[in-house]
Amino acid sequence: MRARDFAIVVGTGTPGPHNAITDVPGVRVGHTTLVAGTGPRVVGRGPVRTGVTVILPHEGSAFDEPLYAGVHWLNGNGEMTGMPFLQEFGLLASPVGLTNTGSVGVVRDAFVEIEVGSLARGRQAWSLPVVAETWDGLLNDIDGQHVTAAHVKEAYQSASGGPVAEGAVGGGTGMICHGFKGGIGTASRVVDGYTVGMLVQANHGRRDRLTVNGVNVGRSLPASGLANEEAGSIIGIVATDAPLLPHQCRRLAQRAALGVARTGGAGENSSGDGFLCFSTGNRNLPANALDARGPRTFQVTVLADDYIDPLFYAVVEATEEAIVNALVAAETMTGADDLTVPGLDGASLAKMLNPGA
Amino acid sequence: MRARDFAIVVGTGTPGPHNAITDVPGVRVGHTTLVAGTGPRVVGRGPVRTGVTVILPHEGSAFDEPLYAGVHWLNGNGEMTGMPFLQEFGLLASPVGLTNTGSVGVVRDAFVEIEVGSLARGRQAWSLPVVAETWDGLLNDIDGQHVTAAHVKEAYQSASGGPVAEGAVGGGTGMICHGFKGGIGTASRVVDGYTVGMLVQANHGRRDRLTVNGVNVGRSLPASGLANEEAGSIIGIVATDAPLLPHQCRRLAQRAALGVARTGGAGENSSGDGFLCFSTGNRNLPANALDARGPRTFQVTVLADDYIDPLFYAVVEATEEAIVNALVAAETMTGADDLTVPGLDGASLAKMLNPGA
Amino acid sequence: MRARDFAIVVGTGTPGPHNAITDVPGVRVGHTTLVAGTGPRVVGRGPVRTGVTVILPHEGSAFDEPLYAGVHWLNGNGEMTGMPFLQEFGLLASPVGLTNTGSVGVVRDAFVEIEVGSLARGRQAWSLPVVAETWDGLLNDIDGQHVTAAHVKEAYQSASGGPVAEGAVGGGTGMICHGFKGGIGTASRVVDGYTVGMLVQANHGRRDRLTVNGVNVGRSLPASGLANEEAGSIIGIVATDAPLLPHQCRRLAQRAALGVARTGGAGENSSGDGFLCFSTGNRNLPANALDARGPRTFQVTVLADDYIDPLFYAVVEATEEAIVNALVAAETMTGADDLTVPGLDGASLAKMLNPGA
Amino acid sequence: MRARDFAIVVGTGTPGPHNAITDVPGVRVGHTTLVAGTGPRVVGRGPVRTGVTVILPHEGSAFDEPLYAGVHWLNGNGEMTGMPFLQEFGLLASPVGLTNTGSVGVVRDAFVEIEVGSLARGRQAWSLPVVAETWDGLLNDIDGQHVTAAHVKEAYQSASGGPVAEGAVGGGTGMICHGFKGGIGTASRVVDGYTVGMLVQANHGRRDRLTVNGVNVGRSLPASGLANEEAGSIIGIVATDAPLLPHQCRRLAQRAALGVARTGGAGENSSGDGFLCFSTGNRNLPANALDARGPRTFQVTVLADDYIDPLFYAVVEATEEAIVNALVAAETMTGADDLTVPGLDGASLAKMLNPGA
Repeated sequence: MRARDFAIVVGTGTPGPHNAITDVPGVRVGHTTLVAGTGPRVVGRGPVRTGVTVILPHEGSAFDEPLYAGVHWLNGNGEMTGMPFLQEFGLLASPVGLTNTGSVGVVRDAFVEIEVGSLARGRQAWSLPVVAETWDGLLNDIDGQHVTAAHVKEAYQSASGGPVAEGAVGGGTGMICHGFKGGIGTASRVVDGYTVGMLVQANHGRRDRLTVNGVNVGRSLPASGLANEEAGSIIGIVATDAPLLPHQCRRLAQRAALGVARTGGAGENSSGDGFLCFSTGNRNLPANALDARGPRTFQVTVLADDYIDPLFYAVVEATEEAIVNALVAAETMTGADDLTVPGLDGASLAKMLNPGA
Repeated sequence: MRARDFAIVVGTGTPGPHNAITDVPGVRVGHTTLVAGTGPRVVGRGPVRTGVTVILPHEGSAFDEPLYAGVHWLNGNGEMTGMPFLQEFGLLASPVGLTNTGSVGVVRDAFVEIEVGSLARGRQAWSLPVVAETWDGLLNDIDGQHVTAAHVKEAYQSASGGPVAEGAVGGGTGMICHGFKGGIGTASRVVDGYTVGMLVQANHGRRDRLTVNGVNVGRSLPASGLANEEAGSIIGIVATDAPLLPHQCRRLAQRAALGVARTGGAGENSSGDGFLCFSTGNRNLPANALDARGPRTFQVTVLADDYIDPLFYAVVEATEEAIVNALVAAETMTGADDLTVPGLDGASLAKMLNPGA
Repeated sequence: MRARDFAIVVGTGTPGPHNAITDVPGVRVGHTTLVAGTGPRVVGRGPVRTGVTVILPHEGSAFDEPLYAGVHWLNGNGEMTGMPFLQEFGLLASPVGLTNTGSVGVVRDAFVEIEVGSLARGRQAWSLPVVAETWDGLLNDIDGQHVTAAHVKEAYQSASGGPVAEGAVGGGTGMICHGFKGGIGTASRVVDGYTVGMLVQANHGRRDRLTVNGVNVGRSLPASGLANEEAGSIIGIVATDAPLLPHQCRRLAQRAALGVARTGGAGENSSGDGFLCFSTGNRNLPANALDARGPRTFQVTVLADDYIDPLFYAVVEATEEAIVNALVAAETMTGADDLTVPGLDGASLAKMLNPGA
Repeated sequence: MRARDFAIVVGTGTPGPHNAITDVPGVRVGHTTLVAGTGPRVVGRGPVRTGVTVILPHEGSAFDEPLYAGVHWLNGNGEMTGMPFLQEFGLLASPVGLTNTGSVGVVRDAFVEIEVGSLARGRQAWSLPVVAETWDGLLNDIDGQHVTAAHVKEAYQSASGGPVAEGAVGGGTGMICHGFKGGIGTASRVVDGYTVGMLVQANHGRRDRLTVNGVNVGRSLPASGLANEEAGSIIGIVATDAPLLPHQCRRLAQRAALGVARTGGAGENSSGDGFLCFSTGNRNLPANALDARGPRTFQVTVLADDYIDPLFYAVVEATEEAIVNALVAAETMTGADDLTVPGLDGASLAKMLNPGA
């Protein structure tokens, strides 16, 4: 169930067919969800409530064919590997992985292993993969580092277009958002013939600040009782087929922070709120390869800046809706040490937003 | 008249005594307001609807004693001089000037002239002043560049603490915000014994996006009819007596963008949305002087990051309220070519926010 | 006289026909040089040893047609206006002005005035001009702010291609470099069919660190006796017709810092060492105009990053040679308070570099 | 053997007792060196020529007690994890790991595992470790990803002060620099009572550009014959006990790029040239912990910027000398596919620098 299933509509824009990041042609998403064990936390044993989500930015090999991309951090208490390359070259040259804080490395190196496996004989990998995280240590035995390379490959291989599973799946399995069960959420907007898709791993926010469509719903609800409930993070991945240069991608990425703000986030100190935007609007860009020099120059198409506002608005709205979708989709979960985090029921939320209905 | 005069209260925080940037001890504000002429625009003649606002960051000489500071841009279609120095050293070492786009230079050089006038015999100026702008070309003969060094000195000399004039004054004289008459607005919050003050020169936003306390009031109002109504900018100056290092000031500055988002801004393409935060919490920092070497090391006090969230929330709220104050304070103005831009009546706004009252 | 006139050849690359920034087709340079008065410094009277240099980035109007550009600061104790716009949009949308520290504003506003004068009836200026500075307060009555808008217009109108006057001219008139008379210098390299041109306003460096072609010549010379001899700055403007995107321009700009390093600079604390690179390799980019929307998308040509190294090397070499050219061209000058700063004689320098010749 | 053993002295500064990063009190270095197998490359089997180097920034636990730090990239074709946190908070809150490109993740997650092992009962890890890399794929079966968590722990546990092994050790085992065998190098300078230490993992540069003390020695040597010899990277870690704030650390980090430039590097396109500087001059900074709130404010000592130049010069010199030390220490190595990369013989280098001696 998603926000719109409860007639909760964010903004005025038109979603794509799946109202998901996969509405951007070629974008695929795969999840590996790890749920095992109950009861007291024993580091290395469990309970396990975590996973990994992989976003493939186009239908080809992300390692072979980069896309223009840009990043913005609202609050950098988080990790996204691959930053130096992305900021120097303005290129995304790998899949994007989302997982828990303690497992960023294994996902990163598994991407390298996947690339190695895909190489023609005699070629070598040159890869600086992008993997981001949020911290699921309340529900999950995060210190047990339960994600393996096999889990990453499974998510990679299962990635597909079409509808995207939301809530407590993939990297979002053990996440908590505004004091409710959170996780993966997605949404999209179609503007001027372009699609803007957003996927969030939502693990941020205080309950008393939760705001949907301008209505603070958090203050009318009981306190969550969670320790450090704001101690989360949100990672947002923006995809678009609008032809954007790297600095324009960075501009879109920053607008995701505005969507976070409108739902009550503030980039809290202990939150790692980072946003990556990539554009499929130019393909066949030269790879950052050691041994594959192409032509000296190439042509790209650029969206004139004068036409970028509708994309900004689309990012803001899609971010808001993706967060709400993550909340509505995620069901109540009991995890480590028998902690139970409640899901935010869509029907109840709808009633809070429209009390007279 | 201000928002609270109409019972429009933004957020849950407590304002300082003046609900103004001047609640931060030592901060002073001065305006020179230029209004002259009516009728058709004749470049160089008028009509003139512009001015300059000067913020003195502490009670001493801003040239002699710098403060830690940081900057964030939501959208860089604007000017703030002094950026390279501020970003390298994390210091604000001048007053802050706010004016129109075509007059940044004269204000900047007038600051140098003021500094020169204050120097002891035999000393020389070393100044990289901070002057920001928004574009008032709809109401004002901006291309006539009507601000002079004398106007800057007048604003500088008249700067004082206490209540701050808002609306169509100083640098905000000719500004337009969300399709209404805008200009200068201010607000403050007291948290944990610290004061956070905000002053905006608000010239940004589309009418149909104007949102106050979560309520979109813009869509229920007639269109503004203005050409390029979003083609404005907002400059926000955050002052605090919390003892922040430069990178912490930058973090606060970014939260101003979240307040802009919550009132309906999105850092539109033609908008220059930039935010400067300075901290008076450490004084007597060494000057960037050629001839005044002090001790090799000095001590500063630092707010632990774990305690920064309340300041973030204060910046978000104070930004929202400062924008609303600018709108409520600014009265309908007729300017160049007889263009009339309506003020947003506070009573009407209050009614839109609370229809049943 | 230039370095090559004394058989001082920097590096292995091939200069363009003028060994100047003007070798990049369309680039023009104009100087206004102000030299007046002798004897004791009286602020506002003189002696005057300053000026303004204007670089027009292409043969059209810089205001109407922007170019991709990027900036890098080795040390930000200096000013370059227009930074927020340049960093957000990756565009240079004005001429580039170089002057003294106290006169940045008048040059900036004079550019706006020039733009206003060029506008079709009914259009308005929207300009965030780029003006940089170095500090000439030892030789010049800098606090007298002797540069006027008329001086700027004169430099603007006199700008031309072909050979560029070097040394104590334009913005470089009163500058000091490595303890010798410095100022304007330029050089160029042709690589892979592209031209890279550099123009510096050199006012930086300690004498004992001056290094030419790897040879420290400073330590074998007497001390300069100047107060704060390192208290200068260097601004470098890189032009190229290679088709670079904004982030690639920024990459080239950073390589200028490496050329400074190779001649003995270190981005000293009191030095404002900033570098701007623009590319003429894509023309007819859409202007940042309020009223002149063009097509939604456009095509640009991009140099593949794999081919960028020769341009990096060209920037390093051209920076080194431009600095040496500034030193060799500038003649001994006596300025305020009868201070005399010696020129670095090219023949003597050549002998130091090649003692056996 | 090191540069000074051959009377090759870089610059004029005074090294510390070990002329190493460990001259900064508390800094410790550990290497795990992996050399196994010969002959043809078989991915996953070998030959193995790689390793991991761990730098502990002070004598306590890097996870429990952060230090102020800053980063600069000359060319971002490389990885350094932990960037978002480091740039937001200005803190280094982990050891620093150096390894090959394909093994960054395993080192990063092993650091988390080490932290978990060190935690008091009931506490959880919150760690965003810093791991950087250079690419050793010519000599090493890099795609085999031979570094394991056990190797990381070994390096971590073996870390010590005192002399530092250089050349083909630790993360530098398989590296190539300016067409010669490269790897780990270190140097230090004592200035104004402070120590500046540098450790590089040198894998960058073209042979024909190798420059030592201003003398290009590369062009007088035969070509290396290596494919893509410039396709390397250099990571430099600067430690100092001068009390620097985060932005001052970043300023020092950028000066490392100047040292690279003076030895012939240019931040080539395929090179990941990144520099991290941390300061031990302020201790007991609050940790970025979830559950360990300390006092609201604390005191730090700050070096006045006016005194920073000697530290800048020290970084430039120490970087140059560390690179030369890496070259001189590294011996000829034969690796994958029987490729042999020659060491640069110190005696020969000394003769090239001083032909008459």
